[in-house]
Amino acid sequence: MRLTKAFQPTLKEVPAEAQIASHRLMLRAGLVRQTASGIYAWLPAGLRVLRNIEQIIREEQDAIGAQEVLMPTLQSAELWRRSGRYDAYGPEMLRIQDRHGRDLLYGPTNEEMITDIFGSSVKSYKELPKALYHIQWKFRDEVRPRFGVMRGREFLMKDAYSFDASYEGAVASYRRMMLSYLRIFQRLGVRAVPMVADTGPIGGDLSHEFLVLAPTGESAVFFDAALEEQDWLSRPVDCDDAESLATFFATVTDHYAATDEKHDEAEWAKVPAERKREGRGIEVGHIFYFGTKYTASMGIEVSGPDGAPFHPHMGSYGVGVSRLVGAIIEASHDDAGIIWPASVAPYRAAILNLRQDDEACDAICDRIYGTDPENLLYDDRSERAGVKFNDADLMGHPWQIIVGPRGAKEGKVELKQRATGERFELSVEDALAKIGAA
Amino acid sequence: MRLTKAFQPTLKEVPAEAQIASHRLMLRAGLVRQTASGIYAWLPAGLRVLRNIEQIIREEQDAIGAQEVLMPTLQSAELWRRSGRYDAYGPEMLRIQDRHGRDLLYGPTNEEMITDIFGSSVKSYKELPKALYHIQWKFRDEVRPRFGVMRGREFLMKDAYSFDASYEGAVASYRRMMLSYLRIFQRLGVRAVPMVADTGPIGGDLSHEFLVLAPTGESAVFFDAALEEQDWLSRPVDCDDAESLATFFATVTDHYAATDEKHDEAEWAKVPAERKREGRGIEVGHIFYFGTKYTASMGIEVSGPDGAPFHPHMGSYGVGVSRLVGAIIEASHDDAGIIWPASVAPYRAAILNLRQDDEACDAICDRIYGTDPENLLYDDRSERAGVKFNDADLMGHPWQIIVGPRGAKEGKVELKQRATGERFELSVEDALAKIGAA
Repeated sequence: MRLTKAFQPTLKEVPAEAQIASHRLMLRAGLVRQTASGIYAWLPAGLRVLRNIEQIIREEQDAIGAQEVLMPTLQSAELWRRSGRYDAYGPEMLRIQDRHGRDLLYGPTNEEMITDIFGSSVKSYKELPKALYHIQWKFRDEVRPRFGVMRGREFLMKDAYSFDASYEGAVASYRRMMLSYLRIFQRLGVRAVPMVADTGPIGGDLSHEFLVLAPTGESAVFFDAALEEQDWLSRPVDCDDAESLATFFATVTDHYAATDEKHDEAEWAKVPAERKREGRGIEVGHIFYFGTKYTASMGIEVSGPDGAPFHPHMGSYGVGVSRLVGAIIEASHDDAGIIWPASVAPYRAAILNLRQDDEACDAICDRIYGTDPENLLYDDRSERAGVKFNDADLMGHPWQIIVGPRGAKEGKVELKQRATGERFELSVEDALAKIGAA
Repeated sequence: MRLTKAFQPTLKEVPAEAQIASHRLMLRAGLVRQTASGIYAWLPAGLRVLRNIEQIIREEQDAIGAQEVLMPTLQSAELWRRSGRYDAYGPEMLRIQDRHGRDLLYGPTNEEMITDIFGSSVKSYKELPKALYHIQWKFRDEVRPRFGVMRGREFLMKDAYSFDASYEGAVASYRRMMLSYLRIFQRLGVRAVPMVADTGPIGGDLSHEFLVLAPTGESAVFFDAALEEQDWLSRPVDCDDAESLATFFATVTDHYAATDEKHDEAEWAKVPAERKREGRGIEVGHIFYFGTKYTASMGIEVSGPDGAPFHPHMGSYGVGVSRLVGAIIEASHDDAGIIWPASVAPYRAAILNLRQDDEACDAICDRIYGTDPENLLYDDRSERAGVKFNDADLMGHPWQIIVGPRGAKEGKVELKQRATGERFELSVEDALAKIGAA
């Protein structure tokens, strides 16, 4: 994309209510624009980040056999009355009446709807396990929306739901999701540590929150370094084998990790000092086994091997997709701007033409740009070099390809890596190779 | 995807209120499930079709320089009060109050919001033209939702908006969109003919509806065959050149096309008899120039070459994405089921294993399936051949790869083309080549 053509409105000043770095940077870099309290429009660069995150989630959910559906944003109150949650849910639920006076609501979550869809489709234990997910906008009428997309009202979430014939099956589904989540966060380029979370009346140990480590996180976190040293992507796990899943799961649960709410000083003391990690975290995911809570309350049964009907066991698994954009920035920025992990960056690199209309500079820039116009942002404005440097740092492209008149004459460009500040003087070919390999 | 693992609930019986073919077939083939009146959940196969349509639209919109954004589903009433439409809009608008009693609405369209975003971002004529689009769920509180996704309440739409410095610029933007739309519909595998539509108080000839030809269409249509004989994809048009755009546009407007509402017998009489085409059509798109209606009413100005502020000229350009799924089926089905155009089909082909657990059949099926598991649907159920044939016809895969024990022994499969019913006995390699080339 050529910056002179792009709808890429960077801002010099940001509203005073933007208190945290990600909120300020998302407004300044032109990723989002607020359209109402806690409601945002995604501008092209922001949408590209959102789509990159979605795609990684999709690939890793598909990889464990989960299947994508898309449920609507509006739900009938009737459905929620069946589970008993319609009256129990607080003022965060946006309640709506249609022109006929029928009660609707803007879905804050989808347990009821997916359970209903499942129940009208699946009749036999032979069709289990099933895991279904969707990526859809949800609404939570926060009393005081703040922190930009981190605590907005209309937000994008991936929520998955598993259905199993037995508790043992549900445990395997839960562990598959744990693996999928660890792989998702690793691919997103953030450190996200799973922490045991409340299970409420269900009990057991099958509830984990995932927290992205960032100094501005809402919770203090304490964990064993072993949890951030794993390479979940290369770890071989046979997702169809309960034992393989159990072995994998033990590598998570064998190591201490807790938020301040759950922190246990006695257990913490057992972690070797050199392996203790403390910090703050932002919750970006939650996985949760809740048994037959919804299948029982909504009367959903399938027939077992003996023909007798039973209520399938369920779990739900959420990732805050739009929240992640903010969380990644909280985890990865400096005073100059955003530092995107390559996997989610809106563009692979920015091309900075330091002397627009100089024949040699334009020729090199055009040549580089032509190799991948969709994924390169070409700053072809007639602006001073300083303005281009600042905007590229602000937008956080992983690489800046800097084309100046002196280097251009020799066919050289300067490559700057945003995360490290490292600079390399390279031929065009070598620069392109280095970016491709990044 | 293996059918034994897929969430692919075909239905034997459909509700009596499903009156039209697409509604019945979408329910029977397990593409959607109704969750409330006029509101549908998209099951995996249906979602794949929706995504394929989206992707074609996206590519063709990007190709003319339009840029994708994503505006939220909920909008503040305040925004609509600025344009004067809040009170003017009828009961189709879903009006909502949040917990603080502030008026929101579920967006039925986005002229106000995009104009506001544009106005707060673009300051100079030098940044024009701009075209922005998004693909988002919208809501229209139909008094009597019917025909499935064809007239649902929550529906997916692509809406684009153009901003130009002059009427002449707006005309060029309009013509680019016309080209983009013709290419979109051609790639979707449907015949969609542009018909002059009402312009209301704006006047002029810059309003066209696109109707997909289908016997169940809501409007009678009359048009010159020249309009369906064009290959818009191979036609060279320079979108940066007003003259090239004008020449292209004339090939559309020089030929008669009208719905019954606009039909002009005198003009129709001038079309040579052998070129007259009559039929029925389903509206799936509408492009419209409306001048400074919103920029003026909302007070949005940018500065011109002389420094004087002016109101940019706008157009809006909609495609009913979810409606298209129904429209394509209306245009392309038979008594046995759906006949998907290859470009939007949920899967490239179905593999029908006629003797599950036969060593030779399983081996050949596994081998074919392994070439592209994501885009092939493998019917690996232990069902009779007749059931598999019926379900494959119902689901409408462009190709069926039929693997029976006799052919399997010789390494042969039977390939059936859904649209024509043609059958070919081929080696596995030749069958795969034929599908890839389709």
